[in-house]
Amino acid sequence: MDLEQMGPQTFLYGCELKAGKEVKFNPEDDDFDHQLSVRMACVDPSTKDELNVVEIEGQDSEGQKVKAVLATLKPSTLPSVCLGGFEITPPVVFRLRSGSGPVHISGQHLLWEETSPFEEEE
Amino acid sequence: MDLEQMGPQTFLYGCELKAGKEVKFNPEDDDFDHQLSVRMACVDPSTKDELNVVEIEGQDSEGQKVKAVLATLKPSTLPSVCLGGFEITPPVVFRLRSGSGPVHISGQHLLWEETSPFEEEE
Amino acid sequence: MDLEQMGPQTFLYGCELKAGKEVKFNPEDDDFDHQLSVRMACVDPSTKDELNVVEIEGQDSEGQKVKAVLATLKPSTLPSVCLGGFEITPPVVFRLRSGSGPVHISGQHLLWEETSPFEEEE
Amino acid sequence: MDLEQMGPQTFLYGCELKAGKEVKFNPEDDDFDHQLSVRMACVDPSTKDELNVVEIEGQDSEGQKVKAVLATLKPSTLPSVCLGGFEITPPVVFRLRSGSGPVHISGQHLLWEETSPFEEEE
Amino acid sequence: MDLEQMGPQTFLYGCELKAGKEVKFNPEDDDFDHQLSVRMACVDPSTKDELNVVEIEGQDSEGQKVKAVLATLKPSTLPSVCLGGFEITPPVVFRLRSGSGPVHISGQHLLWEETSPFEEEE
Repeated sequence: MDLEQMGPQTFLYGCELKAGKEVKFNPEDDDFDHQLSVRMACVDPSTKDELNVVEIEGQDSEGQKVKAVLATLKPSTLPSVCLGGFEITPPVVFRLRSGSGPVHISGQHLLWEETSPFEEEE
Repeated sequence: MDLEQMGPQTFLYGCELKAGKEVKFNPEDDDFDHQLSVRMACVDPSTKDELNVVEIEGQDSEGQKVKAVLATLKPSTLPSVCLGGFEITPPVVFRLRSGSGPVHISGQHLLWEETSPFEEEE
Repeated sequence: MDLEQMGPQTFLYGCELKAGKEVKFNPEDDDFDHQLSVRMACVDPSTKDELNVVEIEGQDSEGQKVKAVLATLKPSTLPSVCLGGFEITPPVVFRLRSGSGPVHISGQHLLWEETSPFEEEE
Repeated sequence: MDLEQMGPQTFLYGCELKAGKEVKFNPEDDDFDHQLSVRMACVDPSTKDELNVVEIEGQDSEGQKVKAVLATLKPSTLPSVCLGGFEITPPVVFRLRSGSGPVHISGQHLLWEETSPFEEEE
Repeated sequence: MDLEQMGPQTFLYGCELKAGKEVKFNPEDDDFDHQLSVRMACVDPSTKDELNVVEIEGQDSEGQKVKAVLATLKPSTLPSVCLGGFEITPPVVFRLRSGSGPVHISGQHLLWEETSPFEEEE
């Protein structure tokens, strides 16, 4: 069993963002529901001392693409920031809107079986 | 199924605040209950190096308008701050109380079906 | 319905602290249980560049008054801090222990009906 | 009723750490289960400008004493840090491993009745 | 009983990372399910003033090893960072990808009995 009662299975997720290099998170269609819970954004010793703006692209409630800013980091000012478990439903795209990176994103990949446990109780 | 058992559907939310430009979040009256879980406030490389104060306007428990400060950011001191999943019931208005921005707000738009899952179990 | 299944209703809370000005949170005795979930503490452009220490006064488990430090902010070092959903049962008093402010506190005022939803299921 | 359905009662906790002064949290054996959810660590205007390292001592899963670092603060760099609801089962000891303090710790003291609510439902 | 209804038992976890010294977390196969909820990463007064990058190695959803960056700290810029309860399923390895440390990691070791409470209710 997992973290919350009847809760999801949790796996580690990590990616590295550089200027001009998008990272997609879009698991295959299987028998699971997927979420990404992004936890930390961090610079690297090789990151230039400029503002690095991490953008995330997902879907709004009407199925339209929406872009949002996840974090703005600068090595000499704020080298890491907690994202606090920001949960995003795939498909998700990460990219740098500004800065050349690298910026590291880490978090949890959460999987649920598609049948709800409560349905099984009935 | 979604994030918590029988829980909400979660969509991405993002907006950009500039001096004199309010942003409203007030979904249409449909069959869903809506919440905004605000996650991050971040400056932009074009943000002037001054204190930018993000104000949010919502409702208190007596139905009166209330204003609160969500974040104070300055590019050279604190370019991003985690808001930790601050949950706000719409209608919500975001604006800059001080500073000329831009400041980016991101978070999760949560939707519940109006009928509670527990009622269906009975 | 609300944020967690059968969960509380959530309203916006905000206050401003200045030297010598206490702010109380003590909702009237009604049919609801109240909690304050404090989320952010933020300085203002008019806050002097000194350490501002926010104190909170509540009750310990033996019904005695207890004071605790919620946040220490300085405009040039840390203009905002996430409080992470620190939940406090009223009556609550906020004040500045040091510094002249203003410091802004924001959070969620949570209300539950006094009858537990689980009792109704029985 | 309390914060989560059938959840704990929540009280305010606060303590002050100085060099050579340990603070223990070890509630009496009563009909309740106790947890400490530590929320914030903050310096004081009287704290010297050096790294102050807060150590916590608790128990690991084999009943052995274990020490861990809860926060490292410096007034001119990071005067407050959110601990995010770090939950610790008593007995707990707080002390400064480095620095002379004072450092303030605040959080929630959570109490549950020893009989689980779910057992009562059966 | 524990923190969430029928929830896990929670123990304190702490480790210290130095260059060239990996730390593994891999509890024995017993009748419990284990999780690590990492809470804080903190420097020490003896940590050199350089960027220290904490790497974590775990498993992705296909059972492959994956590395992610948990935190980037520098004593003079960011001596502590909240990791917000980043939950990781063992086996887990922590190491410094850059910097010579020491960096302290603290968190909660969570244990569940392998039989789910809901199964017992049926």
